[in-house]
Amino acid sequence: MSTTVAPASMLPDAPVAGMLANAIRMLSIDAIVRAGEGHQGVPLGMAEIATALYTRHLKFDAADPTWPDRDRVVLSNGHGSMLLYALLHLTGHARMGIDQVSTFRDFGSRCEGHPERDLASGIEVTTGPLGQGIANAFGMAVAEAHLNARFGPGLVDHRTYAFVGDGCLQEGIGQEMIALAGHLRLGKLTLLWDDNRITDDGSTDLSISEDVADRFRVAGWHVQELDGHDLEAVSDALEQAHADPRPSLLACRTVIAKGVVRLQGQRGGHSGKLFAEDAAAARQALGWNHPPFALPAEVRDAWLAAGARHRSDRQAWQARVAALPAAQRAEFERVLAGELPLGWQDVLANYQRSALAREPLASGIFISAEIHDALTELMPERLVACADLEAPTNHKRRLQAFTAQDRAGTYVHCGVREHVMGAMANGIAAHGGAVPLAVTYLAFADYERPAMRMAALMGLPVHFVFSHDSIGIGRNGPTHQPVEILASLRAMPNMLVLRPADAVEAAECWAIALAHRTGPSTLVFARQALPHVRTAAAAENLSRRGAYVLADAEGGPRRVTLLATGSEVALALAARNLLQAAGIPTAVVSMPSWELFAEQDAAYRSQVLGPGTVRVGCEAAMRFGWDRWLGDRGGFVGMRGFGASGPADVLYRHFGITPEAIVAEAQRLLATAPQPAHGPA
Amino acid sequence: MSTTVAPASMLPDAPVAGMLANAIRMLSIDAIVRAGEGHQGVPLGMAEIATALYTRHLKFDAADPTWPDRDRVVLSNGHGSMLLYALLHLTGHARMGIDQVSTFRDFGSRCEGHPERDLASGIEVTTGPLGQGIANAFGMAVAEAHLNARFGPGLVDHRTYAFVGDGCLQEGIGQEMIALAGHLRLGKLTLLWDDNRITDDGSTDLSISEDVADRFRVAGWHVQELDGHDLEAVSDALEQAHADPRPSLLACRTVIAKGVVRLQGQRGGHSGKLFAEDAAAARQALGWNHPPFALPAEVRDAWLAAGARHRSDRQAWQARVAALPAAQRAEFERVLAGELPLGWQDVLANYQRSALAREPLASGIFISAEIHDALTELMPERLVACADLEAPTNHKRRLQAFTAQDRAGTYVHCGVREHVMGAMANGIAAHGGAVPLAVTYLAFADYERPAMRMAALMGLPVHFVFSHDSIGIGRNGPTHQPVEILASLRAMPNMLVLRPADAVEAAECWAIALAHRTGPSTLVFARQALPHVRTAAAAENLSRRGAYVLADAEGGPRRVTLLATGSEVALALAARNLLQAAGIPTAVVSMPSWELFAEQDAAYRSQVLGPGTVRVGCEAAMRFGWDRWLGDRGGFVGMRGFGASGPADVLYRHFGITPEAIVAEAQRLLATAPQPAHGPA
Repeated sequence: MSTTVAPASMLPDAPVAGMLANAIRMLSIDAIVRAGEGHQGVPLGMAEIATALYTRHLKFDAADPTWPDRDRVVLSNGHGSMLLYALLHLTGHARMGIDQVSTFRDFGSRCEGHPERDLASGIEVTTGPLGQGIANAFGMAVAEAHLNARFGPGLVDHRTYAFVGDGCLQEGIGQEMIALAGHLRLGKLTLLWDDNRITDDGSTDLSISEDVADRFRVAGWHVQELDGHDLEAVSDALEQAHADPRPSLLACRTVIAKGVVRLQGQRGGHSGKLFAEDAAAARQALGWNHPPFALPAEVRDAWLAAGARHRSDRQAWQARVAALPAAQRAEFERVLAGELPLGWQDVLANYQRSALAREPLASGIFISAEIHDALTELMPERLVACADLEAPTNHKRRLQAFTAQDRAGTYVHCGVREHVMGAMANGIAAHGGAVPLAVTYLAFADYERPAMRMAALMGLPVHFVFSHDSIGIGRNGPTHQPVEILASLRAMPNMLVLRPADAVEAAECWAIALAHRTGPSTLVFARQALPHVRTAAAAENLSRRGAYVLADAEGGPRRVTLLATGSEVALALAARNLLQAAGIPTAVVSMPSWELFAEQDAAYRSQVLGPGTVRVGCEAAMRFGWDRWLGDRGGFVGMRGFGASGPADVLYRHFGITPEAIVAEAQRLLATAPQPAHGPA
Repeated sequence: MSTTVAPASMLPDAPVAGMLANAIRMLSIDAIVRAGEGHQGVPLGMAEIATALYTRHLKFDAADPTWPDRDRVVLSNGHGSMLLYALLHLTGHARMGIDQVSTFRDFGSRCEGHPERDLASGIEVTTGPLGQGIANAFGMAVAEAHLNARFGPGLVDHRTYAFVGDGCLQEGIGQEMIALAGHLRLGKLTLLWDDNRITDDGSTDLSISEDVADRFRVAGWHVQELDGHDLEAVSDALEQAHADPRPSLLACRTVIAKGVVRLQGQRGGHSGKLFAEDAAAARQALGWNHPPFALPAEVRDAWLAAGARHRSDRQAWQARVAALPAAQRAEFERVLAGELPLGWQDVLANYQRSALAREPLASGIFISAEIHDALTELMPERLVACADLEAPTNHKRRLQAFTAQDRAGTYVHCGVREHVMGAMANGIAAHGGAVPLAVTYLAFADYERPAMRMAALMGLPVHFVFSHDSIGIGRNGPTHQPVEILASLRAMPNMLVLRPADAVEAAECWAIALAHRTGPSTLVFARQALPHVRTAAAAENLSRRGAYVLADAEGGPRRVTLLATGSEVALALAARNLLQAAGIPTAVVSMPSWELFAEQDAAYRSQVLGPGTVRVGCEAAMRFGWDRWLGDRGGFVGMRGFGASGPADVLYRHFGITPEAIVAEAQRLLATAPQPAHGPA
């Protein structure tokens, strides 16, 4: 669906266009001088580029920043946040009034040091850690291409742009994005590169010799090199970019901090402190005779017109949505809202029953794959990405690949590129309309961890799925054996970590994750087969409280509480049998999610943990973090360092993670613990 | 110093050379069939490449695998570990006898699933997580270039080779390495790319379209494309590579799993299970009529000759070292052994005294920079790398840049490439002769975390230095504010984490880190100024025990213990003053290193933690992990989630990290705690 635009007569002529760019500059300078800090390099260097994009090409309506078919813009060089704030303010975004811009970097201002995702204000994603933004933009373009194929161009047809600096392109994640976006030929993705030849350390000559434009060309991008201060050239290049089926790079040669006479084109242009004298000199250099934060009427009006240029497009789109057949409209609105389809819980309940009946036992990751097989028809909005581990992680099975030729596919072969996979998933979630899963081995979680942190910070509903979750992977050895990674993910705010013990818990954990919309979830599965620790499909989702008594003590008041997660729950159950046989009433607590358990009320937590009982935790991982649940006199059976190369069963014995070791630890603690009033049996 | 080689008459002729390659193949097949698993793709596909390298070019002596001037070889595609094991075995490495190869992947075998660093056996670095190995190799080449400039080619003149697969080159870290190694023109670095067009998922067409060779050319590499099964072509290309001043890529077109008739050239060639029938078919196809693990004499002898080819070179090198002037020899041997110079502790002690006398207070990271300024003359072996944050992290000051033109420099401008920086530092440490520091913001630790994990796993003495360690960074906002990263690093086995509170502790922590040789250290510094919490230069390094009583309770038995790290120690001291003024005897414990404290005996730990006292921890970070020290009834003042954008002091108040909040938490706990026998004052 091609976009209707305002007639040319409404567009500003060249002198006014120059003033529009300078409006960005002076707003930025005034805000940075007032704040006493900030990064002027980007907003001053990219002012014409941004003006060309926002006044002539970008499909958006400032009156409705969340219009689903808007073009997406990512400020990947997020330190240049004033560029984005100036644009949102100038185009008339209601939540970005002058009260916000004039309090840039104050606590409580929406104009924060770096942009923080706030759709209502027009901020698509949080940026700052370099490279994440362009990879998010890539994910948005993937989402758009897929939704365009699924729902048609009448409903989904928009572009994705990213402002990008040298840093984003030096980062490995940026390089991964260049390769994969070129491979997938995402023609509606356009990068606007601020080629200013300066980074924080000084000249880019210090750290890069390659021709960046050529690097994009090698990856199959459409590349144009131009003067980033020539607004007409930028505008023409955007038209060329739109006409080309490849993703496009506009390599825009710019002068960093252009307009600040003292610093422009120099290292200090990046973020050297600006003073009132710099603002005064800039006013003179730019011919800008207006007080701080004030705009001449023609500039204000022209910018507001840009913000309203596509209002009729939005209204036409809304009319098309309203005119859809009811079922189609409901489905479209459901996926845009991120709502789950009717019947999804039945699918999971059915899966539990079938899994319980099945022989032989399945591996943890295969259980997860089967659950997704079962959801295939009901949840076509899932986009599954995997970093070259299709066979061992098994989540493709019923899906077609998303390729340059087939946008209807829902499985993205990412190559061995975990970092862009994670950030792409973030971009898909930020875009909306699709539910991303990113799948790899848990040992490689670190490779995508910076993206996982961004998902947590933004509160994006991304599912990070991991297999091969412990020494249970066996002979590939310690590089591939996570021992500290569960702890490192549990330490992350707003990250929901789920490690199910068997098929029933896996279905419960997926139910929790799919319904979790305020942040990412991490789902951790064993490579090895998981015996059933739950022997019946549950009416109630027991995992929802994070931890629960799986097997209670028998023959007297509970004296020992064994706490375990994932594949170690079965070991705890075996240890319980031994302890019960020795006359020691023992309960087993399964703890699929610490975060959910921490949210329960104190009474429930106390009941589960068994106050006054001897507690032993068991997890094939480091103890770090467990003391919260084990208490002052708790014991732990797990790893004390990195793993080793050997068969899984040998390793479990070698590292002393066995029912017998759990029993020994419990008995050691019983021998030294204060005796309960009722005394031992 | 050019290398003398064995006369041509000693080299095997072409038919024997082919058998040498097939010896690698059959050893690998037999070992993998016996183990029941393994990755045959690499050793079978790269057999001729490896044979050309090891029999005709590689400078090594199997009788002395740790000879410092040996060429370095990294198997970056570490899953193909049998290639390396076969080479080490065939060339006569004593610790890689047939007993090891024939127990490949058994628990306890030196032939582990992936290569694990073991210099005595000839394994330079642990590999497996893709991309790490080539970045290590890059670091080795940096170390060699620097040491060559420092000590001259008579002592240091060797090459670095890496076997590499598609995955390593798809990973962002690999892309960062390509760019930076090209920029630095490390001409003695050669990559041997196994261009087999197959990854785990199948054809590389699934995930990559770019011409990989061109991508290297763009980055300034010398690139040759050749048939990887043509041993002569490989050998010739290696000669060309040696003659070129740029780093070299040999793009070797290969057939994955060549020799296994059923799988060669196919997806299953990567790691599909091999059976006895495959071994039999391979024997037939390769014309190899020898039992498993057996070698014909001429093959065995030719390989052993390759392992001894440079014995006289090694002996000549040893003679040159022995003939050095005593002081020069002592310095060379000191840095190779990783020993600290005489007087280093005096430098740190002097620094403490001068820092205590100085006004105004310095920021945490500036203190670290000053310490290294003071070490400049004494420890020229430090190689400092930084990811485009020279000015805010300050560790360049007295150093010259290491560049393509100046190898004597000791500061590597890495660009915005944290991941390769960390892995490069690992490679420098693995090489020996230099002490690497990798410097960036703590918020970006996640970008190099996979490399940090490898340093911990390998036990390499790398110093990971971080500034901007908390919300104290202020208005750059939550993307740049670590809250969970300390916990995630403390969770990592064999990672020594140090967070000093002031200048005296910073000098102590650096003393600990510099002397720590069995693993990496992480040093974490505040951006903000650190007031002196230690008011005298100490005769004893108090930080060495990890935690210590900085200020004891007064006026009675201790009732409250405040535990804090880094910039929050000063807050704890202020809170102590308030509590003491309220008649509550309160001690402050500074905890610069949890790992060191955990190593102390129980009596010391108990004395420091104050059994029976109310304990409150304070750290501008998440509580995760703190419960170990706080106990069942402990309190905590810190972060509960991500940070925010605002001035540091506003944020500390906003998040309630203040002396008053510590006091309130202590008083809340005192009100509910069991009263000690002596009762309150």
